[in-house]
Amino acid sequence: MIHLSIKPVQPTDTAGVTSMTENPAPEILTDLTDDGVMLLTLNRPERHNAWTLEMELLYNELFDRAEHDPQVRAVVLTGAGRSFCPGMDMSVLDAASSGARPWPTDQLPPRTRPMSFPKPVVAAVNGACAGIGFNQALMCDVRFAVPHAKFAAAFSARGLVAEDGVSWILPRLVGYGNAADLLLSSRRINGTEALAMGLVNRLVEPQDLLPAALAYASELARSASPYAMSLIKRQLADDQARTFTESRDHAAALLATAKRAPDYREGVRSFIERRPPEFAGLGETPAVAPALAQEASS
Amino acid sequence: MIHLSIKPVQPTDTAGVTSMTENPAPEILTDLTDDGVMLLTLNRPERHNAWTLEMELLYNELFDRAEHDPQVRAVVLTGAGRSFCPGMDMSVLDAASSGARPWPTDQLPPRTRPMSFPKPVVAAVNGACAGIGFNQALMCDVRFAVPHAKFAAAFSARGLVAEDGVSWILPRLVGYGNAADLLLSSRRINGTEALAMGLVNRLVEPQDLLPAALAYASELARSASPYAMSLIKRQLADDQARTFTESRDHAAALLATAKRAPDYREGVRSFIERRPPEFAGLGETPAVAPALAQEASS
Amino acid sequence: MIHLSIKPVQPTDTAGVTSMTENPAPEILTDLTDDGVMLLTLNRPERHNAWTLEMELLYNELFDRAEHDPQVRAVVLTGAGRSFCPGMDMSVLDAASSGARPWPTDQLPPRTRPMSFPKPVVAAVNGACAGIGFNQALMCDVRFAVPHAKFAAAFSARGLVAEDGVSWILPRLVGYGNAADLLLSSRRINGTEALAMGLVNRLVEPQDLLPAALAYASELARSASPYAMSLIKRQLADDQARTFTESRDHAAALLATAKRAPDYREGVRSFIERRPPEFAGLGETPAVAPALAQEASS
Repeated sequence: MIHLSIKPVQPTDTAGVTSMTENPAPEILTDLTDDGVMLLTLNRPERHNAWTLEMELLYNELFDRAEHDPQVRAVVLTGAGRSFCPGMDMSVLDAASSGARPWPTDQLPPRTRPMSFPKPVVAAVNGACAGIGFNQALMCDVRFAVPHAKFAAAFSARGLVAEDGVSWILPRLVGYGNAADLLLSSRRINGTEALAMGLVNRLVEPQDLLPAALAYASELARSASPYAMSLIKRQLADDQARTFTESRDHAAALLATAKRAPDYREGVRSFIERRPPEFAGLGETPAVAPALAQEASS
Repeated sequence: MIHLSIKPVQPTDTAGVTSMTENPAPEILTDLTDDGVMLLTLNRPERHNAWTLEMELLYNELFDRAEHDPQVRAVVLTGAGRSFCPGMDMSVLDAASSGARPWPTDQLPPRTRPMSFPKPVVAAVNGACAGIGFNQALMCDVRFAVPHAKFAAAFSARGLVAEDGVSWILPRLVGYGNAADLLLSSRRINGTEALAMGLVNRLVEPQDLLPAALAYASELARSASPYAMSLIKRQLADDQARTFTESRDHAAALLATAKRAPDYREGVRSFIERRPPEFAGLGETPAVAPALAQEASS
Repeated sequence: MIHLSIKPVQPTDTAGVTSMTENPAPEILTDLTDDGVMLLTLNRPERHNAWTLEMELLYNELFDRAEHDPQVRAVVLTGAGRSFCPGMDMSVLDAASSGARPWPTDQLPPRTRPMSFPKPVVAAVNGACAGIGFNQALMCDVRFAVPHAKFAAAFSARGLVAEDGVSWILPRLVGYGNAADLLLSSRRINGTEALAMGLVNRLVEPQDLLPAALAYASELARSASPYAMSLIKRQLADDQARTFTESRDHAAALLATAKRAPDYREGVRSFIERRPPEFAGLGETPAVAPALAQEASS
């Protein structure tokens, strides 16, 4: 029912990245819809999209470019084939267990890119979702999944701690008790159980998963202010460590700024005139007034 | 089945407020039950109870009076007719979009009155609940709603940020993922979906909504210590920004104070004697010992 | 279906404790399974397992011993007979209401032992669970319950505040709205409602409750690293008051430590070799490197 107009994106300049692999297909596919939704598809289907250094470098680069491209208003993240991402590639694990350090982890950005990304990110979880795949899905703003998706936080079974801030976000998604259950046991849950816990926002049959996630993201791209969404994403994260009074006062200051920005007038006018709003994209200009950005980073 | 004995409250002295409108009926109706439940009914049914300056001034005044009236032990907030409150009145929005400042927002108290109110507040959401109506419902302690109620946080569609501390309370009610969904998309959800998320505590058919909310509030008024409820409301809010150890230690200090207050002895005695407790109302005397109040406000 | 091999534990040296009661049976029964699951059974069935000073002293002692016993990898907490723990013994309440101080509360450790215990604790709630029984169940990491279990936070009905950090943990388990409902009203909910709220992780029929809880705990004991679980428990608690960035950075530092510990190599090797892991128990040596422990306690 949903017509998707997807334009292939020009081959990315992955610089030193592609030279590190002999695989001719990029490890992440990119498409941009007419509505401004960037579809990122983890693309090692022969390995169930297991995570590699090449994939991580490309992942970070694609998010960086999407952040600064005003054409991009939302991102959908999924996996090629029948898996989302089952975790690290076995070759990485194998090297790690021998004491080797297969890549310079401490020189890479934190593995939390969708959280710091100022535009909405929707995960379309089409199958196995564990380890770093689990973490990336949790860093997204909204999660759609198929009923047979398999989620697992595999840390405790490997002698590891909850990585990448997962012990921060998971209890806030599913409650403290469910988070303790999942993190201590490393047990797998399917999409149905994930939905009941609040780990997943919506359950969709496989053939409808990508259309549903793209339709949701397109609706964000068409009807919501990119500027407002960038501020709201940060409010949500930062208010978790604020008192109620601090959050309320911060919102009041932020609101005064937002009311001076063009999107407020357009948002109200389009509402009164009963027409779709036309908001500017985000990326070319700073999303936040310098004074506020400074405050937030201090 | 539930017999409600509602006494009309004397017309309020709204001072300069009523002179600002030509509407002879007050914009909020008040009733006080024999049990000490104050029913506040947003009362602009011809405009679906859209919010105005007059309504806001009266709202604040009524909560102030209820706070200091020991007869009032709980508040129920609802809307007249088929709507709860769909947000700002169109005339306000219209002026705002032209750059006018229709009222002195920055000279009014924060729009979070039910949160700072030391007695329990139950929202009975009987229909549309959006914008500032959504915010006020979220500031209440407990929410009852009809299945066809429509909830929407409309900020992102208007180019606005999450106002009034909604980005603080919403993820704590429905989880971080559902909060991101609602705040980024501004999409409407009905009562059934709101219940599944935890936004609503109980779903009730329209003809039973007000009786159910009043019965719940009456039970609080009859069986729970007003003094204890005032302390618990603040514990709930303040513990959100505390460590577990800080919360536990604060509770221990607060408990020592509570055990010296009359309600503790009455609470235990009535339990042992298997009779309803008789607790004093709240309002004439400070709810909290000065030392603790000072600590909390610092 | 589940074969439970439970070895009776040697009678505990409860020192001055047993001399304070004439009851020959200990107020808490202990059993240790072959898998390293310590079963603690509150054991005053003739009084529905109501809490006494003797029980509290023994409870603290048993947790202390289990913490330092590397044989113990997980704890299951339940009640003898048809009740879990309905709260304080009536004799304690009776004395308290007369102004007597029946025991030196302020000289005892905080009533939050399962939270600070570095191994997983599973509550198997087999019936009434109120007051201090409610609090202890909430301090556990995971809760299994029977459908007819009765949960109640009875504070407001007794003129008391939310004790023992319950106002911290409850909203994080069930959401802010459900927590306000339960704490303000003191109303009883059964296991089914508790499951829907997230207060309970799993609902089990009475005859299956203990087998299910023991099987879950055994799985933790067999497959999860005790060292990792101890770190994850603390991450979960401490990240509640951290910003996302702080949590992420703390996890990175903790991960670097964990990767140097033996459990990481064993966790990965056993995964690659598709065999169960063999992790060392916890208790004889410090669970956390001194530098980290110092940081956490400061």
